[in-house]
Amino acid sequence: MIPRYARPEMVAIWSPETKFRIWFEIEAHALSAMAEMGRVPKEAAEKVWEKGGAATFDVERIDEIEREVKHDVIAFLTHLSEIVGPEARFVHQGMTSSDVLDTCLSVQLARAADLLLADLDRLLEALKTRAYEHKDTPTIGRSHGIHAEPTTFGLKLAQAYAEFARNRERLVAARAEIATCAISGAVGTFANIDPKVEEYVAEKMGLKPEPVSTQVIPRDRHAAFFATLAVIASSMERLATEIRHLQRTEVLEAEEYFSPGQKGSSAMPHKRNPVLSENLTGLARMVRSYALPAMENVALWHERDISHSSVERMIGPDATITLDFALARLAGTIEKLVVYPERMQQNLDKLAGLHNSQRVMLALTQAGMSREDSYRLVQKHAMKTWERGADFLSELKADPEVTQKIPVSELEAMFDLGYHTKHVDTIFARVFGAS
Amino acid sequence: MIPRYARPEMVAIWSPETKFRIWFEIEAHALSAMAEMGRVPKEAAEKVWEKGGAATFDVERIDEIEREVKHDVIAFLTHLSEIVGPEARFVHQGMTSSDVLDTCLSVQLARAADLLLADLDRLLEALKTRAYEHKDTPTIGRSHGIHAEPTTFGLKLAQAYAEFARNRERLVAARAEIATCAISGAVGTFANIDPKVEEYVAEKMGLKPEPVSTQVIPRDRHAAFFATLAVIASSMERLATEIRHLQRTEVLEAEEYFSPGQKGSSAMPHKRNPVLSENLTGLARMVRSYALPAMENVALWHERDISHSSVERMIGPDATITLDFALARLAGTIEKLVVYPERMQQNLDKLAGLHNSQRVMLALTQAGMSREDSYRLVQKHAMKTWERGADFLSELKADPEVTQKIPVSELEAMFDLGYHTKHVDTIFARVFGAS
Amino acid sequence: MIPRYARPEMVAIWSPETKFRIWFEIEAHALSAMAEMGRVPKEAAEKVWEKGGAATFDVERIDEIEREVKHDVIAFLTHLSEIVGPEARFVHQGMTSSDVLDTCLSVQLARAADLLLADLDRLLEALKTRAYEHKDTPTIGRSHGIHAEPTTFGLKLAQAYAEFARNRERLVAARAEIATCAISGAVGTFANIDPKVEEYVAEKMGLKPEPVSTQVIPRDRHAAFFATLAVIASSMERLATEIRHLQRTEVLEAEEYFSPGQKGSSAMPHKRNPVLSENLTGLARMVRSYALPAMENVALWHERDISHSSVERMIGPDATITLDFALARLAGTIEKLVVYPERMQQNLDKLAGLHNSQRVMLALTQAGMSREDSYRLVQKHAMKTWERGADFLSELKADPEVTQKIPVSELEAMFDLGYHTKHVDTIFARVFGAS
Amino acid sequence: MIPRYARPEMVAIWSPETKFRIWFEIEAHALSAMAEMGRVPKEAAEKVWEKGGAATFDVERIDEIEREVKHDVIAFLTHLSEIVGPEARFVHQGMTSSDVLDTCLSVQLARAADLLLADLDRLLEALKTRAYEHKDTPTIGRSHGIHAEPTTFGLKLAQAYAEFARNRERLVAARAEIATCAISGAVGTFANIDPKVEEYVAEKMGLKPEPVSTQVIPRDRHAAFFATLAVIASSMERLATEIRHLQRTEVLEAEEYFSPGQKGSSAMPHKRNPVLSENLTGLARMVRSYALPAMENVALWHERDISHSSVERMIGPDATITLDFALARLAGTIEKLVVYPERMQQNLDKLAGLHNSQRVMLALTQAGMSREDSYRLVQKHAMKTWERGADFLSELKADPEVTQKIPVSELEAMFDLGYHTKHVDTIFARVFGAS
Repeated sequence: MIPRYARPEMVAIWSPETKFRIWFEIEAHALSAMAEMGRVPKEAAEKVWEKGGAATFDVERIDEIEREVKHDVIAFLTHLSEIVGPEARFVHQGMTSSDVLDTCLSVQLARAADLLLADLDRLLEALKTRAYEHKDTPTIGRSHGIHAEPTTFGLKLAQAYAEFARNRERLVAARAEIATCAISGAVGTFANIDPKVEEYVAEKMGLKPEPVSTQVIPRDRHAAFFATLAVIASSMERLATEIRHLQRTEVLEAEEYFSPGQKGSSAMPHKRNPVLSENLTGLARMVRSYALPAMENVALWHERDISHSSVERMIGPDATITLDFALARLAGTIEKLVVYPERMQQNLDKLAGLHNSQRVMLALTQAGMSREDSYRLVQKHAMKTWERGADFLSELKADPEVTQKIPVSELEAMFDLGYHTKHVDTIFARVFGAS
Repeated sequence: MIPRYARPEMVAIWSPETKFRIWFEIEAHALSAMAEMGRVPKEAAEKVWEKGGAATFDVERIDEIEREVKHDVIAFLTHLSEIVGPEARFVHQGMTSSDVLDTCLSVQLARAADLLLADLDRLLEALKTRAYEHKDTPTIGRSHGIHAEPTTFGLKLAQAYAEFARNRERLVAARAEIATCAISGAVGTFANIDPKVEEYVAEKMGLKPEPVSTQVIPRDRHAAFFATLAVIASSMERLATEIRHLQRTEVLEAEEYFSPGQKGSSAMPHKRNPVLSENLTGLARMVRSYALPAMENVALWHERDISHSSVERMIGPDATITLDFALARLAGTIEKLVVYPERMQQNLDKLAGLHNSQRVMLALTQAGMSREDSYRLVQKHAMKTWERGADFLSELKADPEVTQKIPVSELEAMFDLGYHTKHVDTIFARVFGAS
Repeated sequence: MIPRYARPEMVAIWSPETKFRIWFEIEAHALSAMAEMGRVPKEAAEKVWEKGGAATFDVERIDEIEREVKHDVIAFLTHLSEIVGPEARFVHQGMTSSDVLDTCLSVQLARAADLLLADLDRLLEALKTRAYEHKDTPTIGRSHGIHAEPTTFGLKLAQAYAEFARNRERLVAARAEIATCAISGAVGTFANIDPKVEEYVAEKMGLKPEPVSTQVIPRDRHAAFFATLAVIASSMERLATEIRHLQRTEVLEAEEYFSPGQKGSSAMPHKRNPVLSENLTGLARMVRSYALPAMENVALWHERDISHSSVERMIGPDATITLDFALARLAGTIEKLVVYPERMQQNLDKLAGLHNSQRVMLALTQAGMSREDSYRLVQKHAMKTWERGADFLSELKADPEVTQKIPVSELEAMFDLGYHTKHVDTIFARVFGAS
Repeated sequence: MIPRYARPEMVAIWSPETKFRIWFEIEAHALSAMAEMGRVPKEAAEKVWEKGGAATFDVERIDEIEREVKHDVIAFLTHLSEIVGPEARFVHQGMTSSDVLDTCLSVQLARAADLLLADLDRLLEALKTRAYEHKDTPTIGRSHGIHAEPTTFGLKLAQAYAEFARNRERLVAARAEIATCAISGAVGTFANIDPKVEEYVAEKMGLKPEPVSTQVIPRDRHAAFFATLAVIASSMERLATEIRHLQRTEVLEAEEYFSPGQKGSSAMPHKRNPVLSENLTGLARMVRSYALPAMENVALWHERDISHSSVERMIGPDATITLDFALARLAGTIEKLVVYPERMQQNLDKLAGLHNSQRVMLALTQAGMSREDSYRLVQKHAMKTWERGADFLSELKADPEVTQKIPVSELEAMFDLGYHTKHVDTIFARVFGAS
């Protein structure tokens, strides 16, 4: 995580202050549960809530203690006992550090997922708005970077909408998977703590109890979570790449908003570059890469080893902060994207009607010509357009082999654009529901 | 994919014969739909079904045609017209190659998922059986590779069961995501084909219509699919690693089945190695690695480029065949795993009662000692055991600072194993449901 | 590896026949060394060379034996003794399977590297030829996909040449690293075999002795090798991406050769797509992905575990065969690339002289204007061109703030192309040496 | 990068202060070169060096300007002109931002490599010292986690030494590759700047001129650099994994240093865990993962896009800071590793002589028995030891089939340890040179 690519709300989730506050809540709720069960004095629990609830935990003091004991949870508990007094000895009883650490990580990832879901909602809204705005804006569809057949700019955005709607569903599932609570002791047997404590804490923290933990919550949950972020990042890269293509000098069908005062290049005053989308492409690579160590984290030894910990200290913040920043940037880019319908039309006209080649070929086939022959016939004329800029329709009209099968008037009628856009409403209804 | 790590049923899904058969079905169903809608003669559709349905497609002939036209679908269609005759010209009308290729890939991945689900079911069954068999077999739980507190071997397997049950759910979701059908033409606009054809083919092929496609089905679906396989592979690595650890000479609590006639080492006749589990570890690395190019495939240019194709030709078979083989091998390994409960007990006794250190510490705390003091006191005695092999209980009993707080009889009672296993039934009920 | 993306010479390196032949040579050379040292009868070595040298090893028979003993090297040795007779008992004495397997893999990877080096040489030759052909062909340089300043098409190719020349050096280094021989016994101590045997075999097989092995050759060597292939693949992706961009309909400055009879699209007869370059993009993703499991293979347990083996059985062939095919395809693509200089000139003219914006700005600065002011002044005029298609030079000439600093005649002189290409010879000399 | 896993010297390389200082030096040296060539007034260069050399660049002020102009280099140049005055207008003439940014990154990566090389030297020194200390300490070699044949602990460390010595060579090569300078203008043509400026700056900054750049230094260099770090990380994981294995409760042949006051577990006072090595395992995963986006960065569009930038802002610091921290931690772990030779001997004795099985088999073969028969005979006795703990030598002596071929006295002599360690000096000489 670097400040340049970070937003405060997501950063706050990963601050030491937030972490210690969550730790406190987990410990205090566990204590309350034990007090309810008569295992510890109710007064102790009350005292802990009272003193700890009011306190601001001193991050530097905790760090100082950790340097001595070389154990972060013990350092926190020591600091807590400084705040609470002797009643603190009932805190953490029968628990192991991972009970606190893992449950805290679940809370943090669930909160991070909530922010990411809000980001996706904003992006979806932007895509929907712009899709309807350009539902009927014709533009050439391209396969292999080569003009294929017409589509509309709204359809492009509808496609992106559908893709991010899927990503939203994936993230909802991943959030549900990650939101579990383990308060099960040193090897997950509840030897020194009752399973009811886990259930109590889970409910209070908005989590579900982990059905069976070892010392830790199993890391396949986290792997699935970060893999989901990686898939979202990949979709983000796709949309960013589309914008980069559209802004190319030779294409220039759309452009990132370029604010007054902005400088595109230190050397070349004429430049307006799609730097946001390029930046998103790079950020997507990062978010994608974090899925790998998350997957390697799954195979912990026996009831746990701590190799996952350093990885998660890094990718927990890095992946969520980067993706949050990137999704917000992407939403903003879409919201403010400058679209050039005239240029789209110009580009559409560039291949002089070639995009109707399939329709002509089909008509020849319908008129009795074999598929092979009609393909060769149409390809022959198409290549003249491709190579020498000939007008496709004129070439067809001048060829008796064609006009024998298709009257000139029908040929001409085949070059209307509406043919290609007649199902746009159907597709919009599929994507956005009945309007 | 290499034959050594492949099973015939999964291999068959990816054979050219299967592929061409699915292509035929897609084309023929599309033709039927068009015939029903009156777009093509019913007789043509009947002829295609009759001739094509009876034919065995000649893979070598298709390859030969492809070498000339450099296009696989055109090569197939040409061959099909050789079989069907002139009626074949109605086939593929208004469709694009990707309509066939992508829908076929959906069918193949869905079928592959079905085999993998069956593999998971077998593995889950094996884990459950062995978990119940060893529900009460005591064994030491280890964190960081170091003895922690006792658990049971059944609990270890129950944990694996829960993990693979989650993986099963993930795969069900991924299968649903991948099982879509696109018959939408060159840029997804249905310009030359009616959306009803897509709906018809989807239903016949057991798929759902893709709400909005470009020339292709969007690749975030495939990325999510292969990422799911990668997560499953990671869980597989975890279980394989557990077995490898248990079979270590110094641990030897369980062992892969070693068949008569088997040779562990060409040089050392005494060896019995956990080679299956080590092999699974390597295969897991492979399946995991395939998720990356699948994710890089998402950002296709505009309405598609074909960079995804070579990747999928490789990872489609490679990932599913490898994972199928590996899951079957893992299931077999669990089914036949030789377990040594006596050795588990011996290892459990190795640290001379140290695994009760937490319980003693808690009792001291309950008796009024501060958390810090009781930790230091117990640690002092524990280190004598750790470093000089002293008997932990004897040391405690000999220390008045301890016995002042806890009577000797209570101390002794703290070393019973049942304390650690009292919640095993609760956990089993959580994992396997009420028995 | 799939046949579609494979060439016979590289495939042959990985055939069972080649493998068993190399195994035989390693075993037989080791035997010769032992015979020279008087450890085994000379006649035995002679008999083994005579019988084994003449034999064709029966792959199916070896597979059959392996199914019983579950050990590939033992299966081979058993088959060898069937061929050689009782003298075969001296074969493999004091050796371990990995001595044979790892040394064989070194030979295979070194041979594969030799083919890849030849591929790179062909590619370099093609790049050099085309670079000189287009040394002075002007074309617009683009940053961010946006026109920047002019360059030449030859310079683009010279850049690619320099990049692949670096890749060649990397591969030479990686080949040297991988070409080691280990004949050191079960844990690398030479307990049952003399280090001189290793030295003898190494020399005969064209390898260097591994200074210190465990049971295996350390896998950091292989990781470095596959990482090098991954870097080469990334460069390949870069060049392929460049071609894909140049062939875009709106750019069309260069085009993959499109052979007579070729069909670009099953549906659209007008299409000519950069399918080779797109294919190379996908293959690059695959080769890159193989580096990961190779790196995960490094951390074998103690003196070895066999988790690396399944990985290498797959990526050994997959990575080298795919990269060999891809490099050959790339070389062919460059050799036959159709270049359109006229179109390059048209695109160059598209921004109406804007690519001289920096030069004008520098001149204003030289004439005493502050950097900030000259930037703003030039940007103002540039944006008019950008947004409304105004002629950049005319705008400048019409602005007294400009002409006060730069006389009109000097302004006009600033729009010559030679200014941008004056150092092309210098750069070519750097890349290709003095011509 | 997070403070917990960072050391100040490496962090300083990546601070904004260091970056701006390097930017200044690049700009000022370029200005000096231009002054020497008579392109700009000498006084301007002197003034820039004088004012800029004395200044502390105000990071907050630069950030403030960047928020307006949205361009970091322009922001810096604006700030520089605030410091220097009107002479600043000669700075950056004919250069492009990437000239500064890329050359700066080269300097930072080269400096980072120097620190990493020092880390490797410390680690190598530690490995060598401990290797000689334990050159003759016998320990069991293990393959597949199973006892194989004896080796010495010094040999294990010598192996690690040789591996890290290779890594050192790789890093030296990667450093040389990355240390290039590009001052070549907007598309690498030197249109507005003389190549001599690049040569001048390169020499002053300790770099080599990039033979042919586009707008940027080609990213295959960076990919190779980060791939090298990833390989080093993989070796680190291997050594860390070895330590984790050796510290397992059942093995306990070596242990990380456990300082007084340290707490192994918050719950279990008896624990001493290999947490440093586990931590290194996790950090290795991270460093490895950074190689991927670095490789994806290679395929920039045309003369550059800026997608690489965000990646490098993250992995530049993250990879080098993490690896620096990890290598230092690994060196410290080796330096202070507590080794238990008695425990090694106990474990060595565990399989009751089984590790001599190969030697006995070879002797039987030498005595005329077929390889197959001797294998079966030795395996039969070995399995009795394996399964029932029988003494291997006694079993052999009691079997006439054995003693017929090998006299009892010779059998007994086969169980001496010196047989296995006789070539240790040879191997040490190979690794460390003649002592």
